[in-house]
Amino acid sequence: MILTVTLNTALDITYRTTALTPHATNRVAEVAERPGGKGLNVARVLSALGHETVVTGFAGGRTGDALRELLAAEGGPSDALVPITGTTRRTIAVVDETTGDTTQLNEPGPTVTPAEWASFLTSYEGLAARAEAVALCGSLPPGIHVGAYAELVRLARGANRPVLLDTSGEPLRRGIAARPDLVKPNADELARLTGSREPLRATRDARRRGGRAVIASLGAAGLLAATPDGSWRAAPPKAVRGNPTGAGDSAVAGLLSGLVERLPWPDRLARAVALSTATVLAPAAGEFDREAYAELLPRVTVTEQAP
Amino acid sequence: MILTVTLNTALDITYRTTALTPHATNRVAEVAERPGGKGLNVARVLSALGHETVVTGFAGGRTGDALRELLAAEGGPSDALVPITGTTRRTIAVVDETTGDTTQLNEPGPTVTPAEWASFLTSYEGLAARAEAVALCGSLPPGIHVGAYAELVRLARGANRPVLLDTSGEPLRRGIAARPDLVKPNADELARLTGSREPLRATRDARRRGGRAVIASLGAAGLLAATPDGSWRAAPPKAVRGNPTGAGDSAVAGLLSGLVERLPWPDRLARAVALSTATVLAPAAGEFDREAYAELLPRVTVTEQAP
Repeated sequence: MILTVTLNTALDITYRTTALTPHATNRVAEVAERPGGKGLNVARVLSALGHETVVTGFAGGRTGDALRELLAAEGGPSDALVPITGTTRRTIAVVDETTGDTTQLNEPGPTVTPAEWASFLTSYEGLAARAEAVALCGSLPPGIHVGAYAELVRLARGANRPVLLDTSGEPLRRGIAARPDLVKPNADELARLTGSREPLRATRDARRRGGRAVIASLGAAGLLAATPDGSWRAAPPKAVRGNPTGAGDSAVAGLLSGLVERLPWPDRLARAVALSTATVLAPAAGEFDREAYAELLPRVTVTEQAP
Repeated sequence: MILTVTLNTALDITYRTTALTPHATNRVAEVAERPGGKGLNVARVLSALGHETVVTGFAGGRTGDALRELLAAEGGPSDALVPITGTTRRTIAVVDETTGDTTQLNEPGPTVTPAEWASFLTSYEGLAARAEAVALCGSLPPGIHVGAYAELVRLARGANRPVLLDTSGEPLRRGIAARPDLVKPNADELARLTGSREPLRATRDARRRGGRAVIASLGAAGLLAATPDGSWRAAPPKAVRGNPTGAGDSAVAGLLSGLVERLPWPDRLARAVALSTATVLAPAAGEFDREAYAELLPRVTVTEQAP
């Protein structure tokens, strides 16, 4: 079983409008809802790849109930979310069908109490002990201490479980110091962490800060990996156009599945790039196009970098 | 008791953002929710004026549950909403704190089944028979026939109850032909109904189409009334700046309360204009500023128009 943690889950709502006119009244043509937050997206892709997955984190209020109901209806990842008295946030993606652009509105998360955090930790320790791998994904909701991911990394490492961290800002800075097995920052997050915009230098710097393997996502250019076994660049056969929402989460799912299947690094990276590109190509945000994935996988180029 | 009908209720959500940037990710600083739809706003103002009010219409799904819970917590109007299997729509008002502008996103309403409409009609007949006055407010959700308001006007008139209609488009055109006691279109709705942009002519034309009294709201310029007892213009002491959301609903509440209190027309119109202006001045959308109302009421000018 692979465990994914989403402390700041969300009910993701998509509104389709013919055109979004700011400062006016807009009729929404179509409404769709689904369980959201990075770790839930990662779990959905892992589940589609045939891995047993469990999601944990927090859910509360009417939106939390809706999220859990939709998650159960998907029939993929198992629900081990911890109930809270606060209300799970909503995110609203307003898709302008004329331009294809998306305007995103993200509510702040609910405040998690110290008792709820303690209850989560107990549940997490039990789940992590049974997991083949653990992924810690996304932002922290209010009320949770900034070193929370560092704490979760240490608990996973204490139980001898490989742990991946995908977050940003201060939670990333603190979390990486607790020595996670994998870190997957994007170029901006990496630059903020290390102060360097030169990807190879920044990736290696992030390793010195504690990441055992650091896999930087460089958008359409693919991935750059610095690992104990060497450094690689992995690139899709060509740049594609589409909706990049969830592409990073699909890359995380590719890396995690490759890890538990004990694939060599070049194969893990090829899978991550193919999944992430197939996500950009899918019509629905955050889904991946299975045919595109199968077609792309053998065509990803993985090049070893000089040490 | 005054009965207000809102067939297309909504959970009104307000998002405050420092600035809304289209086609980008926006953090919402503050989220507020309240029961919405025109008839609910009218009832809230009537209740604040000391009138016993009952709201009916439809509510369903999680958003319908949230709406009813918030309505009960307000402690104002009584809830006689009819449950449906569909889900009550959300409306989202995104307030840009830099410019003060609002971008509105309105979900489509739930589809109401013929059985649900029949169940509403039974409940409505019972409530209308006990009401001092009935207000029919807002748009029709999908599934309800376009002559629905005409049907509700006829039922109220059959029970000898004064009935006010505040809607637009084809439902207004059909509803007015059923001879409601009051109609309150705004300038645009009136122009669409009558083909005339000249307010006095259009208001009188609307009377010929069946409205016993027609009160046109002319935005910051106040109201223009054509009634069996004469025609009047009522104007606030000066144009005010603020959020016009709910100003029309406050005017309806002013007209209805004046009707059941048997005030002469000039007093009803002065009350409607003062309430509506005090709503534009209130910091929260759809509320009215009580102090401003008391201060404005004696200063509204009501001028009789030549027959």
